Amino acid sequence: MILAKVVGTVVASQKESSMDGLKFLTLQQVDLEGKATGGFVVAADAVGAGVGEMVLYASGSSARQTKATENRPCDAVVMAIVDNWETDGTLKYKKGRDD
Amino acid sequence: MILAKVVGTVVASQKESSMDGLKFLTLQQVDLEGKATGGFVVAADAVGAGVGEMVLYASGSSARQTKATENRPCDAVVMAIVDNWETDGTLKYKKGRDD
Amino acid sequence: MILAKVVGTVVASQKESSMDGLKFLTLQQVDLEGKATGGFVVAADAVGAGVGEMVLYASGSSARQTKATENRPCDAVVMAIVDNWETDGTLKYKKGRDD
Amino acid sequence: MILAKVVGTVVASQKESSMDGLKFLTLQQVDLEGKATGGFVVAADAVGAGVGEMVLYASGSSARQTKATENRPCDAVVMAIVDNWETDGTLKYKKGRDD
Amino acid sequence: MILAKVVGTVVASQKESSMDGLKFLTLQQVDLEGKATGGFVVAADAVGAGVGEMVLYASGSSARQTKATENRPCDAVVMAIVDNWETDGTLKYKKGRDD
Repeated sequence: MILAKVVGTVVASQKESSMDGLKFLTLQQVDLEGKATGGFVVAADAVGAGVGEMVLYASGSSARQTKATENRPCDAVVMAIVDNWETDGTLKYKKGRDD
Repeated sequence: MILAKVVGTVVASQKESSMDGLKFLTLQQVDLEGKATGGFVVAADAVGAGVGEMVLYASGSSARQTKATENRPCDAVVMAIVDNWETDGTLKYKKGRDD
Repeated sequence: MILAKVVGTVVASQKESSMDGLKFLTLQQVDLEGKATGGFVVAADAVGAGVGEMVLYASGSSARQTKATENRPCDAVVMAIVDNWETDGTLKYKKGRDD
Repeated sequence: MILAKVVGTVVASQKESSMDGLKFLTLQQVDLEGKATGGFVVAADAVGAGVGEMVLYASGSSARQTKATENRPCDAVVMAIVDNWETDGTLKYKKGRDD
Repeated sequence: MILAKVVGTVVASQKESSMDGLKFLTLQQVDLEGKATGGFVVAADAVGAGVGEMVLYASGSSARQTKATENRPCDAVVMAIVDNWETDGTLKYKKGRDD
């Protein structure tokens, strides 16, 4: 999985019908310090994440292992909202403190 | 999924027979500002996208989760035509306005 | 899929037995202008492609969706020989003219 | 698989329910000399690895081939703790000596 | 598949039990000239390859399509030992001559 920040949403009314009802979030990848790496992706939302939240997303076939994305042409899914993480014993991100 | 602009088409008459009838689109990847990143891919079309349109495409096994691409040697599919997207509350792309 | 030029072949007599009879082609990836990107891969041949031809190849599990590669440890397959492609309305490659 | 060092943990209480009980580890990728490459990933733990240990992780659908991760939206798993490795006949890493 | 040279081995006694008995090889990727690209990976061995040999490896779910790796958390497998390859009609590598 990759750490990322939700920065926006994509609207697409004309799409493969199985994608109806899925919310598309734009994500900026961050490194273990919480800094943007320059990488980005559009992911389906499986956990009710909102803009500004730090999340984990899964890619590839693993992105279809949620109720929201099963059997759909979806290759990235937000499957967790991050509370905090630490690196080498130091708290690098804490929801609320670092948003 | 990745945001991309349809820039052209590929014709290939000699191919794995299961690919008959599929349309191959060439796509230029764009970033969250809508600028070309330099990345590109050839994707099958599952939604009737045309040259000049902004789309979302899915890669890997997820590219086979459409009626058009099921069980075929296809690793990228256009599965949505983008109407608009916004980043940090700003509208970055709007179909019609930014084409 | 990715556009690539067939530049050679690999011979490997000692291999997983399910790979017997498959032809391994070396491919140089090209961009939408037809120029080599520096990327390369070894792909199984599913369409009878030869050295010098421009092709499309598929990667990952999609590379196993041909009769030649089904259920085999093969992660890249040539599944089409390219006749031509155009970008922004300009013919960038035409078989015969640009070989 | 890729060699990596476990450097921390991620806490995420709000997640796809199938992920309950899984431990998320942050990993720094290392090269064959044991030096950090700059790459990183968040992986589920299938072997009881701890911070500071050198491990192997698998990505993609292969990350779901453990009891801990089966059928879950998980695209990276720590599936082995490394005792040692050698390159060109030289011991490059030995657990205990190089931690 | 990717061309690579076997440069060493990894020992990991504590691992997902399904991985017992598999040999882990460290591989340095090479380009079509046979030169190291800087890329590397740890792959399971399905063909009895040894240090110093030039091989092909497959990645992703295709790495599980051998008897040795079926249903295991393994995302890279050595599935062939290379005898030789040629590029644009020139022999670039020949086992025995270029080892």
